[in-house]
Amino acid sequence: MSSTSARRLNIDNINPHVREAKYAVRGELAVKSEEYRAKLAKGDTDLPFTQVISANIGNPQQLDQKPITFFRQVLSLLENPLLLQHEEVLLNQLGYKTDVIERAKWLLSKAGSVGAYSASNGVPAIRQSIADFLERRDGFPANEADIYLSGGASSGVNTLLHIICEGPKTGILVPIPQYPLYTASLSVLNATCVPYYLDESQNWGTDLEAIKKGCADAKAQGVDVRAIVIINPGNPTGASLSEADIRSVIDFAREEKLVVMADEVYQTNVFIGKFVSFKKVLRTLQKENPGKYDSVELASLQSVSKGMVGECGHRGGYFELCGFDPKVQAEIYKFVSITLCAPVIGQCLVELMVNPPKPGDPSYELYDKEYNGIFNGLKERAYALWRAFEKMEGVECGEPQGSMYLFPTVKIPAKAIEAAAAEGRSADEFYCLRLLEATGVCLVPGSGFGQKEGTLHFRTTFLAPGTEWVGSIVKFHEDFMNKYR
Amino acid sequence: MSSTSARRLNIDNINPHVREAKYAVRGELAVKSEEYRAKLAKGDTDLPFTQVISANIGNPQQLDQKPITFFRQVLSLLENPLLLQHEEVLLNQLGYKTDVIERAKWLLSKAGSVGAYSASNGVPAIRQSIADFLERRDGFPANEADIYLSGGASSGVNTLLHIICEGPKTGILVPIPQYPLYTASLSVLNATCVPYYLDESQNWGTDLEAIKKGCADAKAQGVDVRAIVIINPGNPTGASLSEADIRSVIDFAREEKLVVMADEVYQTNVFIGKFVSFKKVLRTLQKENPGKYDSVELASLQSVSKGMVGECGHRGGYFELCGFDPKVQAEIYKFVSITLCAPVIGQCLVELMVNPPKPGDPSYELYDKEYNGIFNGLKERAYALWRAFEKMEGVECGEPQGSMYLFPTVKIPAKAIEAAAAEGRSADEFYCLRLLEATGVCLVPGSGFGQKEGTLHFRTTFLAPGTEWVGSIVKFHEDFMNKYR
Repeated sequence: MSSTSARRLNIDNINPHVREAKYAVRGELAVKSEEYRAKLAKGDTDLPFTQVISANIGNPQQLDQKPITFFRQVLSLLENPLLLQHEEVLLNQLGYKTDVIERAKWLLSKAGSVGAYSASNGVPAIRQSIADFLERRDGFPANEADIYLSGGASSGVNTLLHIICEGPKTGILVPIPQYPLYTASLSVLNATCVPYYLDESQNWGTDLEAIKKGCADAKAQGVDVRAIVIINPGNPTGASLSEADIRSVIDFAREEKLVVMADEVYQTNVFIGKFVSFKKVLRTLQKENPGKYDSVELASLQSVSKGMVGECGHRGGYFELCGFDPKVQAEIYKFVSITLCAPVIGQCLVELMVNPPKPGDPSYELYDKEYNGIFNGLKERAYALWRAFEKMEGVECGEPQGSMYLFPTVKIPAKAIEAAAAEGRSADEFYCLRLLEATGVCLVPGSGFGQKEGTLHFRTTFLAPGTEWVGSIVKFHEDFMNKYR
Repeated sequence: MSSTSARRLNIDNINPHVREAKYAVRGELAVKSEEYRAKLAKGDTDLPFTQVISANIGNPQQLDQKPITFFRQVLSLLENPLLLQHEEVLLNQLGYKTDVIERAKWLLSKAGSVGAYSASNGVPAIRQSIADFLERRDGFPANEADIYLSGGASSGVNTLLHIICEGPKTGILVPIPQYPLYTASLSVLNATCVPYYLDESQNWGTDLEAIKKGCADAKAQGVDVRAIVIINPGNPTGASLSEADIRSVIDFAREEKLVVMADEVYQTNVFIGKFVSFKKVLRTLQKENPGKYDSVELASLQSVSKGMVGECGHRGGYFELCGFDPKVQAEIYKFVSITLCAPVIGQCLVELMVNPPKPGDPSYELYDKEYNGIFNGLKERAYALWRAFEKMEGVECGEPQGSMYLFPTVKIPAKAIEAAAAEGRSADEFYCLRLLEATGVCLVPGSGFGQKEGTLHFRTTFLAPGTEWVGSIVKFHEDFMNKYR
């Protein structure tokens, strides 16, 4: 008996639901790109490119984006409160402003040490600050007891799906294309993903008929459909829902008794259209129609990883619940307790995100300049990339709408599809793999997000600085098309 | 139809496995203690105590423990790298040493920004630093590719159990008493907890016969027992396993083909006995008996939350795998990818923990003083508490051995047991609730960790400063015994 076969765990006997989960954003291509990066770092000159561009993941600070100064100054004081014994040095020699010092003192007074566990649902004062923000944003009250700090939005999604999914027959409506966190988490939980297709011909709009059809088909198969995920603005599409769209989704959720999970992590990354929160529309509907919408359950998620904050590595986020049964909320509290609490420094960063310097505050001018600089930079890069795609044969891409991504359609020659099949790969995977090998640019094949049968896409972030990498995609595409034409 | 009944989610239809999970460390008593704390903060003077002592959870910095200066100085520079443009100010006016600056620069060069996602398994250079530490600690090589950074050890346990548990028939041997993370996670995963009892008469020693019996009983019932959890030093018991004990556990694991999960988060919190790692013993056995132990799979966990570091709020930790199938490791990598990565600032803190200042380094003297101060303080408090327990009628407690806890047996009068039953509570819960109401001291009833039928315990940390709270426990106990005698 070899030592391998003597092992207790092997690929065939581990948790089958983990084995079945797919997460292409950090899959084979991403792993291969990291190998290339390591090779280049060691001085390897055999590769046909000199840098790896990780356009597979919305990770702004891995690329060019600088953190916002106000945020990081406060965090530095939270990490080393002894610095607060030297206020004159901070103010006169290190460029800290009085509002930085005040905020740090306030957060320390509320969180104690950032090295201490907080309450399982987060530091109470931070939950209150989030509630205040939500009230300012939506014009409706928010309750700190309904807010849960999480380790990024991913951990919030994990919590919510853990509670909602009763068993294999539980169905969750998920948009396609979607961020694969949803399908992967549902796989791990052994619940049923009920897809509904976004309408590419309407610039990836949310089509109520498609939702109804997805829901009805699943119910006909005995699936207990109990929640709908909406990613607004969309990932990977960038599309924002109009207020009318949101009303019809909420109406449908009310009729079908579906919990609404609104993933709103790109709420400030909007170029076309306007972000309107599900919470605001729900409260408006409740006000307009007393009693009618009281039973609607809504969970909205937000994160420090996206927007102009871009602080992915800090794993900060929160979700707000509306209309949930208090006994169910108690179970959510217990569930998050098992892993104790979200990172406290990340919680503090959430507080800074929702309560940034205001006009007149000493740090406002710099904050505003940095914030707008990031916003405009993202928009410029998005358009530069889009214009490049416009020129590429067989590539179609809607105008950039928001989020951090473009998700073009690619039509590739039959010969390329055959060559992919010969390698046992999907055609979009084959295309992205060849692109990575030739240029060092890492994209994610559309199959990683889901796409209509017979269509091919890829997702790219527009975070990477410079235009050279865009040029290298254009050049690769031309060669690829010529090779397989 | 009331709006409540119209809700989609209620306590009866959510995930039953979440509903069944128990996590007493942050359960009813902890929630009640937070309510008391909030009351006191508002100036309430109706309560019979003036402060809440959270002795229910190992959360050093919530109480008296100050963070270690070297760690926090480095973290402040990672949060605000702009400070590195002012080295003279840092060195001459703010008390930073050159090794602080060097370490911060090195970590930034390896992690990029702490606001960027790292690789899913952690920053490569940090994994290498952990491997170097393990090699120094154990005298055997360690491979960075086998190390996974996690959000505290809890998240590592969650990952490992997710992979190991194939279905409801999968059994995991768990010590009783145990830290309830294990039973709660197994509930959520709908897998089977296979208890084995620690031997209180041998100061909570690990009894191989009890393990054999637990395993055999479960197998007789058709359970697929495939892993054993060892908490060493123990939580809540503090007991350290001898090298001989570890050898027999590994031998048994080899014979029965059990994956060994060694929870070693208290490895530096040892007063009696000596910490020996499972990894060291496994590698020693492999060296002594070529081939015989090659199939043993070991996962060892460590955290920044415990030890003299005590940085719970930073959610840093790691696990190391030995002997795992590469294909299984690839699934672990995929699983951790779904929630992207552990908090990067927490990863950096792990690096500082495993690679602290060495003798001769500029920061060494202060580091050493702080480290020993914390160690001695914990030991003194443990003994003070133990001496108080020694004097309490019906309370028996072994000499403090390590970890952050004492776990005494309490014998309470039959009348108190009846009064508890009348309230529908277990007797230990009743005792701890009355104690909380009378003194503001929050303990965890022994039933939260598991205890032999007919015995009653509670767990208390020995982290809280001062002796007043200890006196209040002694006084309460006397009154309680007199009331129910």
